[in-house]
Amino acid sequence: MKISILGGSTTRFGELWSLSLHDLANEAINKALADSNLESKDIEALYVGNMLSGMLSHQENLGAFFSDVVGNNVPAFHVEGACASGGLALHSAIQSVLSGTYETVAVLGIEKMTDQLQDEVAALLMSASSEEERESGATFAGLYALMANAYLSKYKLSADDLVEVGVKNHYHGSLNKKAQFQKAVTRERALASPLIVDPLRLFDCSSISDGASAIVITSKTVDKSIMPVEILTSEVATDTLGLQDRSSLTTLKAVELAASRAYKKAGVKPEDIDVAELHDCFSIAEVLAIEDMGFSKRGEALRDIKSGFFTLGGKKTIINSSGGLKACGHPVGATGIKQIVELTDQLRGKAEGRQVTDARIGLAHNVGGTGAVAAIHILSI
Amino acid sequence: MKISILGGSTTRFGELWSLSLHDLANEAINKALADSNLESKDIEALYVGNMLSGMLSHQENLGAFFSDVVGNNVPAFHVEGACASGGLALHSAIQSVLSGTYETVAVLGIEKMTDQLQDEVAALLMSASSEEERESGATFAGLYALMANAYLSKYKLSADDLVEVGVKNHYHGSLNKKAQFQKAVTRERALASPLIVDPLRLFDCSSISDGASAIVITSKTVDKSIMPVEILTSEVATDTLGLQDRSSLTTLKAVELAASRAYKKAGVKPEDIDVAELHDCFSIAEVLAIEDMGFSKRGEALRDIKSGFFTLGGKKTIINSSGGLKACGHPVGATGIKQIVELTDQLRGKAEGRQVTDARIGLAHNVGGTGAVAAIHILSI
Repeated sequence: MKISILGGSTTRFGELWSLSLHDLANEAINKALADSNLESKDIEALYVGNMLSGMLSHQENLGAFFSDVVGNNVPAFHVEGACASGGLALHSAIQSVLSGTYETVAVLGIEKMTDQLQDEVAALLMSASSEEERESGATFAGLYALMANAYLSKYKLSADDLVEVGVKNHYHGSLNKKAQFQKAVTRERALASPLIVDPLRLFDCSSISDGASAIVITSKTVDKSIMPVEILTSEVATDTLGLQDRSSLTTLKAVELAASRAYKKAGVKPEDIDVAELHDCFSIAEVLAIEDMGFSKRGEALRDIKSGFFTLGGKKTIINSSGGLKACGHPVGATGIKQIVELTDQLRGKAEGRQVTDARIGLAHNVGGTGAVAAIHILSI
Repeated sequence: MKISILGGSTTRFGELWSLSLHDLANEAINKALADSNLESKDIEALYVGNMLSGMLSHQENLGAFFSDVVGNNVPAFHVEGACASGGLALHSAIQSVLSGTYETVAVLGIEKMTDQLQDEVAALLMSASSEEERESGATFAGLYALMANAYLSKYKLSADDLVEVGVKNHYHGSLNKKAQFQKAVTRERALASPLIVDPLRLFDCSSISDGASAIVITSKTVDKSIMPVEILTSEVATDTLGLQDRSSLTTLKAVELAASRAYKKAGVKPEDIDVAELHDCFSIAEVLAIEDMGFSKRGEALRDIKSGFFTLGGKKTIINSSGGLKACGHPVGATGIKQIVELTDQLRGKAEGRQVTDARIGLAHNVGGTGAVAAIHILSI
């Protein structure tokens, strides 16, 4: 069975204090429906990716909560997997279509985070980590800093080069009108930013954001004129929550497992991917992802980023044309679906101002925790 | 494609202060595997139903969190739908098997609630309701009391008869070694219990509980000797979160919709159901469920309960042989899966001490909020 993305939409990401969860969902879903040439009555089920609504907004029962945006008492499901909530919701939605139970399904990724103090949100995000990590007083920046130090030490690299990830992604973000930070930064500016946890500086860390993204998928045969994007594969794998239980700090096993299955099932190789959205919650996360996904050899991702290989106008694979989590923003549950919306726009040649030339195959890499869960999707047009 | 339940298990429900979330998951999953004659390596994916872990235990990323109980880096998913989290997790697991992506999948329902003050838990449970209901100061007991008053007034019935639900379910619970309350109560005792919200008394309300339940489902052809239970259908529908947006307080639209689809797809009628687990979070909820599911005519459920029609040894359909949420306990995310474990035991003739004679067809009815979401499963042997 062939599953197509009919359309998608992303709200502006950022500090959206005047918009409620429902406002964000309404905008994302209704614009995704319009982009798909559909009406809400065409939607048979709704999948929602969200992590923090219970803790931050005291709102759960999220499938039903958002189902009135679609109407018709549709079956609706809330899927949570920390920062991979969007990717897991999409995987579940795909299963429901492949099963033949539903034909046309909407997937919403959503998070509203900036109404709370940043420190409180950072503490709540630690619910994605292990109990041992929480009890030790770790933060996600601290855990990723451990991984960064292990990586830099293993390959004898300069911490300064980590900021190249942020420089690239902020350049891309400067071209994206939906991005939270539409401003390019220089290497010098990034290096002058404060250390958050050594070796990670401010420009190595993604932000706390509000936003929503939605797509519509279908198993129906679709007219080529509306440029359906085919989902070639959807793969998920897990790993331990805590870093202390892993054999390596410089590769994510869940990503490796999901990626190898995804490449095999889709029948493509890393060099076939024209455009990829990788989960750059911290600069080191993108570095590990580039290597785990096979876009660079081990230890060479930073060199390749610095050479402009992955930057718009570079050879390929173009990575995080949306600005990534770093510049586009990271409303947790929305991120995995925003990646799909970005790829859909790119594959359709509709990524205004930041189009990747001749993009035919795209890949989304969405991670929860420090790699406890990974969802990989490969798309083609 | 035929989907079979291979086995299942439920921990004791109750105040389990010495057991962690992981302890509960380990026991439920490992006993479900043993009951299924499987090892953990046979499991290809894990679905977890849970509502409150983020708020109560500061633990999210629940798919990955519990995945180590199964091992092998299995794809794992956390599905939330308030008190219907278990039923929705099962529905999603079924889709993943019907899709052909996975063949053999475990489903875990789990909740740990009693480590917190009951008032705090009751407040957090309101995250399943609408913002308007929360702002008005409503509690779930209060909202169900509104429904109870509407029902009693519409059919000119005595509030005293509501306690018959608790009397029946406590009798059943007295026969279930896993139940939180293994004690029968008399009508007099129930009527003498304090009013919680008029007309609901203590014995009209389910409890706050800890517990976990797990099952294993498969699309593989299974030897008849292990008595596989077939899942005939799995249906989900939603409604508005808030009572204020509904046209009726004496019927749940989400239940009616899911039930009519379920009966049609399974090719059975209410009178064919030998044993049913209905979502009796409050006595009035079971009353409405009995009528919405077609086991009694409108306005006659209380009379039928009082006549012993649904009690073990009664004609049929036997309702809540486990003790229901009222006596077996209601660890929110576990309830929907506990219902399936109970039905599986009944259909296999293994419901020790409370066996329904010649049980061939079973039905589970799992509701979230005051009926904002409903999941209906029909099983047969």
